[in-house]
Amino acid sequence: MKKIPHKIFLSEEQIPSKWYNLRADMKNKPAPMLNPATLQPITLEEITPVFCEALAKQELDNDTRWVDIPESIMDMYRIYRPSPLIRAYNLEKALGTPAKIYFKYEGNNTSGSHKLNSAIAQAYYAKEQGLKSLTTETGAGQWGTALSEACAYFGLDLNVYMVKVSYEQKPYRKAVMQTFGANVIASPSNTTQIGQKILAADPNERGSLGCAISEAVEKAVTSDNCRYVLGSVLSQVLLHQSVIGLETEAAFNMIGEYPDIIVGCAGGGSNLGGLIAPFMRDKLTGKANPRIIAAEPASCPSLTRGKYAYDFCDTGMITPMAKMYTLGCEFKPSANHAGGLRYHGMSPILSQLYDDGFMEAIALEQTSVFEAAVMFAKCETILPAPESAHAIKGAVQEALKCKESGEAKTILFGLTGTGYFDMTAYTSYLEGQMNDYVPTDADLEVAFSKLPPVNV
Amino acid sequence: MKKIPHKIFLSEEQIPSKWYNLRADMKNKPAPMLNPATLQPITLEEITPVFCEALAKQELDNDTRWVDIPESIMDMYRIYRPSPLIRAYNLEKALGTPAKIYFKYEGNNTSGSHKLNSAIAQAYYAKEQGLKSLTTETGAGQWGTALSEACAYFGLDLNVYMVKVSYEQKPYRKAVMQTFGANVIASPSNTTQIGQKILAADPNERGSLGCAISEAVEKAVTSDNCRYVLGSVLSQVLLHQSVIGLETEAAFNMIGEYPDIIVGCAGGGSNLGGLIAPFMRDKLTGKANPRIIAAEPASCPSLTRGKYAYDFCDTGMITPMAKMYTLGCEFKPSANHAGGLRYHGMSPILSQLYDDGFMEAIALEQTSVFEAAVMFAKCETILPAPESAHAIKGAVQEALKCKESGEAKTILFGLTGTGYFDMTAYTSYLEGQMNDYVPTDADLEVAFSKLPPVNV
Repeated sequence: MKKIPHKIFLSEEQIPSKWYNLRADMKNKPAPMLNPATLQPITLEEITPVFCEALAKQELDNDTRWVDIPESIMDMYRIYRPSPLIRAYNLEKALGTPAKIYFKYEGNNTSGSHKLNSAIAQAYYAKEQGLKSLTTETGAGQWGTALSEACAYFGLDLNVYMVKVSYEQKPYRKAVMQTFGANVIASPSNTTQIGQKILAADPNERGSLGCAISEAVEKAVTSDNCRYVLGSVLSQVLLHQSVIGLETEAAFNMIGEYPDIIVGCAGGGSNLGGLIAPFMRDKLTGKANPRIIAAEPASCPSLTRGKYAYDFCDTGMITPMAKMYTLGCEFKPSANHAGGLRYHGMSPILSQLYDDGFMEAIALEQTSVFEAAVMFAKCETILPAPESAHAIKGAVQEALKCKESGEAKTILFGLTGTGYFDMTAYTSYLEGQMNDYVPTDADLEVAFSKLPPVNV
Repeated sequence: MKKIPHKIFLSEEQIPSKWYNLRADMKNKPAPMLNPATLQPITLEEITPVFCEALAKQELDNDTRWVDIPESIMDMYRIYRPSPLIRAYNLEKALGTPAKIYFKYEGNNTSGSHKLNSAIAQAYYAKEQGLKSLTTETGAGQWGTALSEACAYFGLDLNVYMVKVSYEQKPYRKAVMQTFGANVIASPSNTTQIGQKILAADPNERGSLGCAISEAVEKAVTSDNCRYVLGSVLSQVLLHQSVIGLETEAAFNMIGEYPDIIVGCAGGGSNLGGLIAPFMRDKLTGKANPRIIAAEPASCPSLTRGKYAYDFCDTGMITPMAKMYTLGCEFKPSANHAGGLRYHGMSPILSQLYDDGFMEAIALEQTSVFEAAVMFAKCETILPAPESAHAIKGAVQEALKCKESGEAKTILFGLTGTGYFDMTAYTSYLEGQMNDYVPTDADLEVAFSKLPPVNV
């Protein structure tokens, strides 16, 4: 039998020409977003002041199964896609497992992560609508970087509200965004009323993703020809990210394999939702039954310890409410939690699937995650983003179970990006300075107490 | 006619299985290295205390045209090779040129540059010989990172002497090497006699590549089971880097193209020598006559303003002497010169070819180089290393000449790596803080006065 190559590359013609909308195959659709003023499902008219029109339609569309990818988006996809599916031969060897481990590698582009897949789509539709500028928030910086690149490519201005603690700790991330022409603002800032209010209450506030979202939304709705875009959580984002899963499926078809277990890191759910899309479809339609595992940080455990409830997407409580697994929109993971995956809620699509039992979730402590990251780096010579390392750790755990049972299962995980900008965290791990703070039940009770009354 | 895709990918089977030794086709061979004690051509016995044996043989071998790549090296090449040849459609459009611009992109691996191609080979041969550890130097950090990865993969200890100014300015680079298990030492250091001597003369000395080489060589020859390895300049390195050119040639064959102009950035010559190898062969054998252009920084202009003379490879004057275009082994580019390409001399192979008129050279000022880098990043969404940006600038200049003349020439340049760790330099450019200091003739006269007397 011919040995499967290390990297399985599709040709440029094999980049999917349509996105796959998983919602079309879900019997239980994700709950509709609510207008916080009326508590009624939000309408297209109500959200088009925030989102540009094509994206708002995608957000509300639970039915269209396949969405054509516009040619201008395909043109930019062709710069860095298809991404390789890689057989982790060296990791398998190091673990001594009979399992076959594959990873879909989304780090081979300058934004350094899968976020570019949706950034391109969102920038394109904004340009098509004749908008002049976009606003967004970024935490670890991957989304902001991706969107900066997409806006530079399509010729849009961009204001990025960057969580202040990241702004200070990751000057290089900021510099990359600036190189691509973005205006990067530390959040909370004085450029919005919400930011001013937060700073008035605590001038030393270092920010959160929820707070940066509030500022970015306010800025969008108060500026001319401007809209807000978001890099995760939303159903439109999972739609765009389905290219990851579709390419993975095509690559597996090429080599005659199918995953028994799929592991993805889970923050807001953009990568996980994209990676699993066609495999979850197989599960929903009864065609196959792979195990699907969301790997989240123990310090921000929305699936494993959160509540499935309506919540605001932002700290300022100005966004529509979404039903999702959430820790409460005021929850903030401990400051020593490195990297991303810090968002309080989980994609409504994934939340519904998890609630319906189609998906498992595990919570991982960060020291063990970095341990897996360093092992992986030495084996496969790719330095993973801390976010991605959650998926690595999850896959390693499953591969070790196979070692025990002697089963040669096929394990797929998503390697969402590279860790070049996370060296402070790696150094902290190498020096034994990292700790594994996990919120107590009491911490979570406080956070849950801020959930909006609509849930009662 | 079918449109040429954005990225031309070879299959894994098309990774070259042999390196090409350009020296075999050179009528005028590069001058032999001299033993500084005897002023006679150095022998295998004399250099094996410094280099491991297989590499020493490669260094001295001017005749073997094709060298088999060992299977273990191929295994690691398959992790990240073949690298894509990319058609820069967007850059062409932005320039409004009829020229067809292609670049060979070597940045898609965690080391972030082409350096990994030779690091793998050098670590492999060291392991084969039963060595326990290696020493090397690194300036901007790309070579040290690549070698750290290769040593982690093959299980070798590694001491990296990192030029102190880079060690301080690039903590993330240092952290990446440490993540892969390397011991990183700021040079000059107290771990060697040469370092101690330099620090005694000036405790504030911030180091140079030449000084770090001296320390790494001393450390290797005074340690058990240890050898020194170098990431550029040497003929063995150009041999390993020929994979770049061979893949490029194969990709051009696939699409029925051939470059009229080839531009590579030139520091020690490792990328340029590898990229041009098969095309220079065509030139030497009369099969074709592409223009070949070395793009070097005006602040370290070894080809355009150096002397073709025997010189030491290091500041400490403990290495063999090589005949090369050199600025003198004590030359140091101005502190405000960003990125790599800081070495005082040029590969003896390339020096001979340049002296024989087979190659042109241009010296570029850094502001214009960063301007080209930012333009390229916005068009092609890859943030280039400052080193690589010299090749971009060279290619852009040629493309603009084509615009004037209306000629649709095919231009190839080497994109050696990514600029993630050079954001300080990008920020300095964006803020208008960068300057273009170029050595005066008087500066160079001082440097030339230190050339060894063997040249007289």
